[in-house]
Amino acid sequence: MVNQRDLDKAEVLVEALPYIRRFNRKVIVVKYGGSAMIDETLKQDVIEDIVLLKLVGFKPILVHGGGKEISKWTGKIGLETKFLNGLRVTDAETMELAEMVLARVNKELVSRVQALGVKAAGISGKDGGLLKVRKKKSSEGDLGFVGEVTGVDPKILQDLLKNDYLPIVFPVAMDEEMNSYNVNADEAAGAIAMELNAEKLAFLSDVEGVRMDPEDPDSVISELYTGEAADLIEQGVITGGMIPKIRNCIDAISKGVNRVHILDGRIPHSLLLEIFTDKGCGTAIVRPHQEKYWKQKA
Amino acid sequence: MVNQRDLDKAEVLVEALPYIRRFNRKVIVVKYGGSAMIDETLKQDVIEDIVLLKLVGFKPILVHGGGKEISKWTGKIGLETKFLNGLRVTDAETMELAEMVLARVNKELVSRVQALGVKAAGISGKDGGLLKVRKKKSSEGDLGFVGEVTGVDPKILQDLLKNDYLPIVFPVAMDEEMNSYNVNADEAAGAIAMELNAEKLAFLSDVEGVRMDPEDPDSVISELYTGEAADLIEQGVITGGMIPKIRNCIDAISKGVNRVHILDGRIPHSLLLEIFTDKGCGTAIVRPHQEKYWKQKA
Amino acid sequence: MVNQRDLDKAEVLVEALPYIRRFNRKVIVVKYGGSAMIDETLKQDVIEDIVLLKLVGFKPILVHGGGKEISKWTGKIGLETKFLNGLRVTDAETMELAEMVLARVNKELVSRVQALGVKAAGISGKDGGLLKVRKKKSSEGDLGFVGEVTGVDPKILQDLLKNDYLPIVFPVAMDEEMNSYNVNADEAAGAIAMELNAEKLAFLSDVEGVRMDPEDPDSVISELYTGEAADLIEQGVITGGMIPKIRNCIDAISKGVNRVHILDGRIPHSLLLEIFTDKGCGTAIVRPHQEKYWKQKA
Amino acid sequence: MVNQRDLDKAEVLVEALPYIRRFNRKVIVVKYGGSAMIDETLKQDVIEDIVLLKLVGFKPILVHGGGKEISKWTGKIGLETKFLNGLRVTDAETMELAEMVLARVNKELVSRVQALGVKAAGISGKDGGLLKVRKKKSSEGDLGFVGEVTGVDPKILQDLLKNDYLPIVFPVAMDEEMNSYNVNADEAAGAIAMELNAEKLAFLSDVEGVRMDPEDPDSVISELYTGEAADLIEQGVITGGMIPKIRNCIDAISKGVNRVHILDGRIPHSLLLEIFTDKGCGTAIVRPHQEKYWKQKA
Amino acid sequence: MVNQRDLDKAEVLVEALPYIRRFNRKVIVVKYGGSAMIDETLKQDVIEDIVLLKLVGFKPILVHGGGKEISKWTGKIGLETKFLNGLRVTDAETMELAEMVLARVNKELVSRVQALGVKAAGISGKDGGLLKVRKKKSSEGDLGFVGEVTGVDPKILQDLLKNDYLPIVFPVAMDEEMNSYNVNADEAAGAIAMELNAEKLAFLSDVEGVRMDPEDPDSVISELYTGEAADLIEQGVITGGMIPKIRNCIDAISKGVNRVHILDGRIPHSLLLEIFTDKGCGTAIVRPHQEKYWKQKA
Amino acid sequence: MVNQRDLDKAEVLVEALPYIRRFNRKVIVVKYGGSAMIDETLKQDVIEDIVLLKLVGFKPILVHGGGKEISKWTGKIGLETKFLNGLRVTDAETMELAEMVLARVNKELVSRVQALGVKAAGISGKDGGLLKVRKKKSSEGDLGFVGEVTGVDPKILQDLLKNDYLPIVFPVAMDEEMNSYNVNADEAAGAIAMELNAEKLAFLSDVEGVRMDPEDPDSVISELYTGEAADLIEQGVITGGMIPKIRNCIDAISKGVNRVHILDGRIPHSLLLEIFTDKGCGTAIVRPHQEKYWKQKA
Repeated sequence: MVNQRDLDKAEVLVEALPYIRRFNRKVIVVKYGGSAMIDETLKQDVIEDIVLLKLVGFKPILVHGGGKEISKWTGKIGLETKFLNGLRVTDAETMELAEMVLARVNKELVSRVQALGVKAAGISGKDGGLLKVRKKKSSEGDLGFVGEVTGVDPKILQDLLKNDYLPIVFPVAMDEEMNSYNVNADEAAGAIAMELNAEKLAFLSDVEGVRMDPEDPDSVISELYTGEAADLIEQGVITGGMIPKIRNCIDAISKGVNRVHILDGRIPHSLLLEIFTDKGCGTAIVRPHQEKYWKQKA
Repeated sequence: MVNQRDLDKAEVLVEALPYIRRFNRKVIVVKYGGSAMIDETLKQDVIEDIVLLKLVGFKPILVHGGGKEISKWTGKIGLETKFLNGLRVTDAETMELAEMVLARVNKELVSRVQALGVKAAGISGKDGGLLKVRKKKSSEGDLGFVGEVTGVDPKILQDLLKNDYLPIVFPVAMDEEMNSYNVNADEAAGAIAMELNAEKLAFLSDVEGVRMDPEDPDSVISELYTGEAADLIEQGVITGGMIPKIRNCIDAISKGVNRVHILDGRIPHSLLLEIFTDKGCGTAIVRPHQEKYWKQKA
Repeated sequence: MVNQRDLDKAEVLVEALPYIRRFNRKVIVVKYGGSAMIDETLKQDVIEDIVLLKLVGFKPILVHGGGKEISKWTGKIGLETKFLNGLRVTDAETMELAEMVLARVNKELVSRVQALGVKAAGISGKDGGLLKVRKKKSSEGDLGFVGEVTGVDPKILQDLLKNDYLPIVFPVAMDEEMNSYNVNADEAAGAIAMELNAEKLAFLSDVEGVRMDPEDPDSVISELYTGEAADLIEQGVITGGMIPKIRNCIDAISKGVNRVHILDGRIPHSLLLEIFTDKGCGTAIVRPHQEKYWKQKA
Repeated sequence: MVNQRDLDKAEVLVEALPYIRRFNRKVIVVKYGGSAMIDETLKQDVIEDIVLLKLVGFKPILVHGGGKEISKWTGKIGLETKFLNGLRVTDAETMELAEMVLARVNKELVSRVQALGVKAAGISGKDGGLLKVRKKKSSEGDLGFVGEVTGVDPKILQDLLKNDYLPIVFPVAMDEEMNSYNVNADEAAGAIAMELNAEKLAFLSDVEGVRMDPEDPDSVISELYTGEAADLIEQGVITGGMIPKIRNCIDAISKGVNRVHILDGRIPHSLLLEIFTDKGCGTAIVRPHQEKYWKQKA
Repeated sequence: MVNQRDLDKAEVLVEALPYIRRFNRKVIVVKYGGSAMIDETLKQDVIEDIVLLKLVGFKPILVHGGGKEISKWTGKIGLETKFLNGLRVTDAETMELAEMVLARVNKELVSRVQALGVKAAGISGKDGGLLKVRKKKSSEGDLGFVGEVTGVDPKILQDLLKNDYLPIVFPVAMDEEMNSYNVNADEAAGAIAMELNAEKLAFLSDVEGVRMDPEDPDSVISELYTGEAADLIEQGVITGGMIPKIRNCIDAISKGVNRVHILDGRIPHSLLLEIFTDKGCGTAIVRPHQEKYWKQKA
Repeated sequence: MVNQRDLDKAEVLVEALPYIRRFNRKVIVVKYGGSAMIDETLKQDVIEDIVLLKLVGFKPILVHGGGKEISKWTGKIGLETKFLNGLRVTDAETMELAEMVLARVNKELVSRVQALGVKAAGISGKDGGLLKVRKKKSSEGDLGFVGEVTGVDPKILQDLLKNDYLPIVFPVAMDEEMNSYNVNADEAAGAIAMELNAEKLAFLSDVEGVRMDPEDPDSVISELYTGEAADLIEQGVITGGMIPKIRNCIDAISKGVNRVHILDGRIPHSLLLEIFTDKGCGTAIVRPHQEKYWKQKA
């Protein structure tokens, strides 16, 4: 009368038990970007994952960007896009448009979470003074309204979590003269995770993790101590765009985050896979002195 | 040694005492629109007024539109604007743009409040499921994504007020299929005020109040019982665009709001004038059975 | 790199989402008895199930008996076991032993829950005055210290739930003269579920549900309205020991429990199967006027 | 339609905004004495000022004396008044009468605050053990029942503030043998302000502030660092009765009060003038290392 | 080694157990007057009794008068004392003096409680707006500033009890024009007890209770139903000054007090005797329909 | 009318006042064993004492053994009892029986407390993970399932106290492999008292205290500094079974308990005698540096 598939299901749920227990009431900051923000199925997967984390007792915070959507709109209204050393130069008009686009994306994510029966609150870095920023200096020229985080006031996030909302944040903030600045979402997620001493900080992007051999997709490293990660940068194994990402990870750990993950957003449910399976997925950067603990896996 | 101007100042503050006491911890919903959203000085005046109300112990909630800003952007990207019986027909593309524009305006208002040292939280009708809407039916044709409010879940506003934020709301919400709808800001403000049994609901727009003689600007009526207001509509004294406004006011009072105000947003600090002077400003619509109370003025 | 089995796992977890959401913070009373208390593997399964329910946000309460264990001990010390119309006659010595045995079983269950990382508190019907009882009258003779529940003071359970414990209850209570009585565990679980207006009351025993044809194990009925259940008793389809069980279910629903389940404790994880699959398992007795709701399944 | 006077009023209220924000939820201890306790108009002004401070979110505490009223009564019943080095010698009968008079004055102040719609609670130094005192020693003779403060238990004030009362204190307290002592109100206010780390301590008396030239009423100094004040005493600029007052101020700042004011109680609303105007009024004694802050004015 | 006296002591404490349990966290209003306010030993006894009640978990409130002390002072300053139908005519000067005297007595009682290590807060009917009064009308002439209670705002008492203070009240209050009135302490105690639905209201005065035979001190009745008490008035058994007292008792019970006691304040510890012995002391007026309960004694 | 016995009673209650005040809201851990657990009258005395302590505002915790009752049962089922150096060797079967017996005794104590109208909650060292234990090593052989405490998680006791229960603990706990162990009740009580920084730890057993002359029952010492106690062990005054008891006391004080008492459980109400009389009873072991305080007696 009870079929095998249902019995298997029950088994999977029971296997999730130690993970649920371990992260109960812990803060998990998820930086959400890349393909998983565009592909309709992946997008829904991410929302389901994060809603599930919320419902089983974790405290997830979603921080999102929206680069491709911004580009779509600058194109639409004929704004020229300049880059300086790989960074988009953000003039006043682009800044205004970027804030508009990100705010709308934010409300779409809020809608999706609400539709799954969980209360969401979408905010920017301005609300409650969450992010304090100033103009980012670049040695190569004026980047325009690109901001760098100088402080985090976590109270609005704490208030929302206490009242059981899932906070969804887009990284636009103001400086002391009330100018709006666009902040890199990785940087914002990292700053928030540090301020809240998050248990986990997960970067969900189009990167499958750190490879030992850049040419070999099967050479992804599961786990790296911060020291090892620093060595790999020095040895030239980690290169290019991965370098700032990994530095950001190392920094986050040194400032109080327990564990940082680089997850491949192109894999369905990569967030759940990381949290609810022994092998995890992608690359984890971990504290140096906790070997034994992590051998058991987190 | 103490000059007269300072003594006069002290006198004004002391005169404010009975009003501060009367509205202490009371909810005041302010619909904010019209010129006061465009003129830079008036804009700052409104923000100062509402921040002051917050600081002296009231619980203001700001609900704003942004029609003129939306028109600026539809023009910019060459969207055609159609009207049906005076209502803007909102197709999918216009809706997307409207949400973008309103969200950005929302964050600008948040910035201004934060800059005055008060914590603000800007939300839409989607956050926390604040507004439930469905497509508005019109006998004259399809209005597109114009929504009508079918329910209010006030919990997110109550949570924000409890944690001492000034909530700033823009009236975009979703239906059960997760479509976005634009809601008339007057309607949204009214629905919120009713749900919270607000002490006051103030409409700040480019209208100086109800005139006995439409041609005579000095014929503005200070105070109307709901019954009198209904009579004036029937007698043809109140006409045109004022009819739905006044009906909205009467409705709000019948559903639990204590007092509704039509304030002229073109007068600086009209909100403070209404609350802190005996004469008030604009037209107040009041409950029928409270004559004596209101003779003393609220 | 990510294998199919892990992807399937993630899928199962996501499928659990609507069930987790539905029962969030709801009280679920589980009467635990039969083979599932003896077979070592089944025992551990039940504990895992109930711990999982706790961790994902439900509020389970476990009520257990221990008949077979009591028989083992009465045998050991040579106490004669008499039965009166199917009920064990409980003299003073048997009562003392029964309390000893049930209390030890209770602590073993506490140990198992604690070992899985969840806080458990094992109590009897005496602690905090949880169960008020008096001697059960029987027309056929003196049953000795068999009690019938006359009242429930739920405060100790509410206090334990509020402080996040999983309460485990054994049904021994005292009368006003401080005599100890053994209470039928089904009756105790029912009384507690009613007092707390539990969302669910599940009887986990060696019964696979209600059969339309007593001879055909495939004729188990998934769902019965209380009226239908009463009819089946009258028609003689439900017979023997099932009659008091079903009457208890009907009673529980009439007094405020939302849904009662007869689950086969011999099937591994039958509790999870019931809660996390569409088909459920065993027989559910449901309120008469909620057809549509239950068609969607609870 | 809106007259200039009303517009000016609104302007004054808006100007108060930064001051209201700055002192929000801060404790302000006001020592109330001198002419402002006798002149009917000034008395009502002080009460209005302090009620306004309460209503806009500050936490004022009023500490009052009543010397002239006591003298009136000692005269009435023919008690001889002796002075020793400027201090009133307080025998048992005078002490009893002083306590009676001060208690009645206290209740009159309570009445006035209550009449303005704010909850007041009048207490002595005995209630809740607020002030611990012992007999004040004098090298010149026995002062009788004049007490010196040896400790403050602020709990009753904290409880009253938490429950939103305006505490009004008269400085009579008991020693360990339950004898009543009269305490100088300046000393009591200072001790209370220190214990609560008050933001401000204001002495409202018949003194217009510290003059550079004792003969020239226009030479009042607005602001003095504690060091400067000490110098002025040494240089003989500050003389006579001002010396203990100023020493008390310096002491209060060294023990945790942020800023101490000497206000002229003969000027109407001097308390509001000090708090809500840039220039303030009277003389402020301030911490040495906060120059820039105070240049902006507090 | 352990002597009999100590064993007896322990026995007495254990006998107090059911009484302590019964009145745990219950409000007991004690009107305190008569000889027990004058005799030094009796005074200390009353304070010890009430402190003990507080410490073992009751919530006593002390309401006191001070008639003899007032007379002492009116004599001292040569005020003439007029009586109208047995009531003191209170002119403005007498009122001022009465408030002074009562306030001082209040602080003395506060001192005594504090000296026993329990926090006390002494308040008047003005503090927190506790008592609302108006001028008492008399058919026989103008009584002056004698007030009658028209309302009780119990919040200040509830706040003090919640914060664990023993409230001590003297019955002076103000009318709407801020005039002070003296209120009969029996009346004030009754009004407070009713508003708080007190468990007990005890009048401690120089009356030993209701006598069946006015001439026979041994004829004191222990317990009277309100109906019986009314009959005794009609039959002329209860006469003179006892009539208003008993009417006050009957009234208090009809408005929510559970039990009213007339205690002889000349007997040491009569309050404890009443509460901690089976026989009680003085006369209790009780609700009509609770016979069985009171047979067991309260 | 009031008899002398009742007056004496009141006197005794008043004398208890300073003791009640001193221990208000303080934790008092009572180890309960010996004759007082067997003799029916003494048993009821102890329960009354502890219920009284609870009702007058203390926070008692009862920790009990049950050695004699265990022996009765091992005899009944014919288990052989072996001793190793005075300690009972506990094989698996004895352990199972011991847990059964202690759990039943626990529920009997719960019943008795509940019958006196106070809420009790009976728990083991397993509930809420209260006691962490491991197998006790003995140089002389295998003691079987005798545990030694390695940690205390006081949360369940704190939660019960906060919710106003009287916790009753029996010292059976589990190790990390979920084996049950019997723990010496003295040791468990000591560990709990230390973890909670109890005000008092009282051992109620068949020992009248420490004697200066082992032969002379009148030579019991009232009070010993921990240093003096250590000296008496060294000098051979304290011998035999008293040595581990006293060492336990000294240890408890060094780890945060304020005062440890050895009380003779054979004296009725010895617990009350200790707490409510000046002389106390039995022997108290006290901190070295608090002489003066204890001269006044605790």
